[in-house]
Amino acid sequence: MKNKVVVIVGVPGVGSTTVTNKAIDELKKEGIEYKIVNFGTVMFEIAKEEGLVEHRDQLRKLPPDIQKKIQKMAGKKIAEMAKEANIVVDTHSTIKTPKGYLPGLPAWVLEELHPDIIVLIEAETDEILMRRLSDETRQRDFESTVDIGEHIFMNRCAAMTYAVLTGATVKIIKNRDFLLDKAVKELVEVLK
Amino acid sequence: MKNKVVVIVGVPGVGSTTVTNKAIDELKKEGIEYKIVNFGTVMFEIAKEEGLVEHRDQLRKLPPDIQKKIQKMAGKKIAEMAKEANIVVDTHSTIKTPKGYLPGLPAWVLEELHPDIIVLIEAETDEILMRRLSDETRQRDFESTVDIGEHIFMNRCAAMTYAVLTGATVKIIKNRDFLLDKAVKELVEVLK
Amino acid sequence: MKNKVVVIVGVPGVGSTTVTNKAIDELKKEGIEYKIVNFGTVMFEIAKEEGLVEHRDQLRKLPPDIQKKIQKMAGKKIAEMAKEANIVVDTHSTIKTPKGYLPGLPAWVLEELHPDIIVLIEAETDEILMRRLSDETRQRDFESTVDIGEHIFMNRCAAMTYAVLTGATVKIIKNRDFLLDKAVKELVEVLK
Repeated sequence: MKNKVVVIVGVPGVGSTTVTNKAIDELKKEGIEYKIVNFGTVMFEIAKEEGLVEHRDQLRKLPPDIQKKIQKMAGKKIAEMAKEANIVVDTHSTIKTPKGYLPGLPAWVLEELHPDIIVLIEAETDEILMRRLSDETRQRDFESTVDIGEHIFMNRCAAMTYAVLTGATVKIIKNRDFLLDKAVKELVEVLK
Repeated sequence: MKNKVVVIVGVPGVGSTTVTNKAIDELKKEGIEYKIVNFGTVMFEIAKEEGLVEHRDQLRKLPPDIQKKIQKMAGKKIAEMAKEANIVVDTHSTIKTPKGYLPGLPAWVLEELHPDIIVLIEAETDEILMRRLSDETRQRDFESTVDIGEHIFMNRCAAMTYAVLTGATVKIIKNRDFLLDKAVKELVEVLK
Repeated sequence: MKNKVVVIVGVPGVGSTTVTNKAIDELKKEGIEYKIVNFGTVMFEIAKEEGLVEHRDQLRKLPPDIQKKIQKMAGKKIAEMAKEANIVVDTHSTIKTPKGYLPGLPAWVLEELHPDIIVLIEAETDEILMRRLSDETRQRDFESTVDIGEHIFMNRCAAMTYAVLTGATVKIIKNRDFLLDKAVKELVEVLK
């Protein structure tokens, strides 16, 4: 009996963490347990254990080959966790960097992780813009709705590639304004 | 002298089967023969021979690992057929399931199948909606034009990934209202 | 100390060569050297050395298996060059052929090439149309803005797949009318 590995992604500000936490609370009421792991946190813990970094910010400054190795180890570690529990992996389909969109789950990570489902949380680009502007707790780079739309586009492309390589499904869930409950309900159905 | 393997896909209601059948009839007149195989049917026949299922609906209820194995065997079988004849594979780029878009040709199938060309049959989303509504022979889930557009988007992403993995080309043919003949003619040129 | 391999692509007429040449001139002033290689030219040179072709047009008429082998060898050769210098690879994300969109960097080329960054040069579809119409030095097939948009779409899909397979980033740079300097500046930052 294999547990599920569900990867949940979304652009910054789309509310994927909120939707995920609420869906997992709902499922708990029905006796279905999921463990949430943040991919970046798992990478950081591994790099720290290996004595490579002390702070999370140092991760991205490691040589690419080392980063790649740690990514792979993180994939393996999460796959190990999935032997004990259903897992939701909180990560990004692509990360927008100054050098371009970086895939969150490159091929060598997918080989280890074997996700069953990739969930893309989406919203209209103007909704995301407004959510970012009204979130005073975080300092985010300013992006236009066109930029946000481009990021969503590339996230879909990357997610579909992950699916072709692994056989996972890609579920798109809209987290529209005033309709958080609907998004949560849809995610609950996917995680069941 | 290798025969061609052409995969033809499209969302439900776009008319890919009609376009395919007409194109193959046209080619026959010119002395070019293609054998049409439905990927799902090949999978079903294999599963039946193995004593795993009796009805086609049981296929999707098999454990994922078994389904994967049967998919791979179907890919291999079609590649075998291609030693004798040109093959058109009737399948889906992605299948819309409750758990999300499932790739029709995951990596392990492509490894066996080696398609030369992937043909995406497309139409405007409202044309597809109207065709679905007026097709009384089938009971289909209701989808909005936005939903249909999302499916077409993901089909393109998946098809391009298939191409990168195999070196196949991706041909997009529009099957617009009142222009079936044009679509057929384009497909004939691709299959020549 | 590994040099960089940056792949720069764009649809015909978008001006990717202009942007690239100007960016490389700028970088030279700052003491950063890049060698530009055209993927097709490298393929041609290899095929010529092997005695397979005399003219570049003959490349595409070679049997697919031979073409595949030459592509792979070209990828290897460029990766070799990258041991000596930073490399910009001038190529296409997808090539529009009568049989559909052909991926410029299929999986077996990526395995050899290991690009660090894939840069997509884009513009509005009507800008590209007007540039093509006003370029009298080249005879190009006529394409509508819808066709051009489709090509840009498929280029993004292919590029993101390249990224997932290799870990490269995908940077989209807009080469808008009257804003060439902005595009050049953005590319300079990416190549630094």
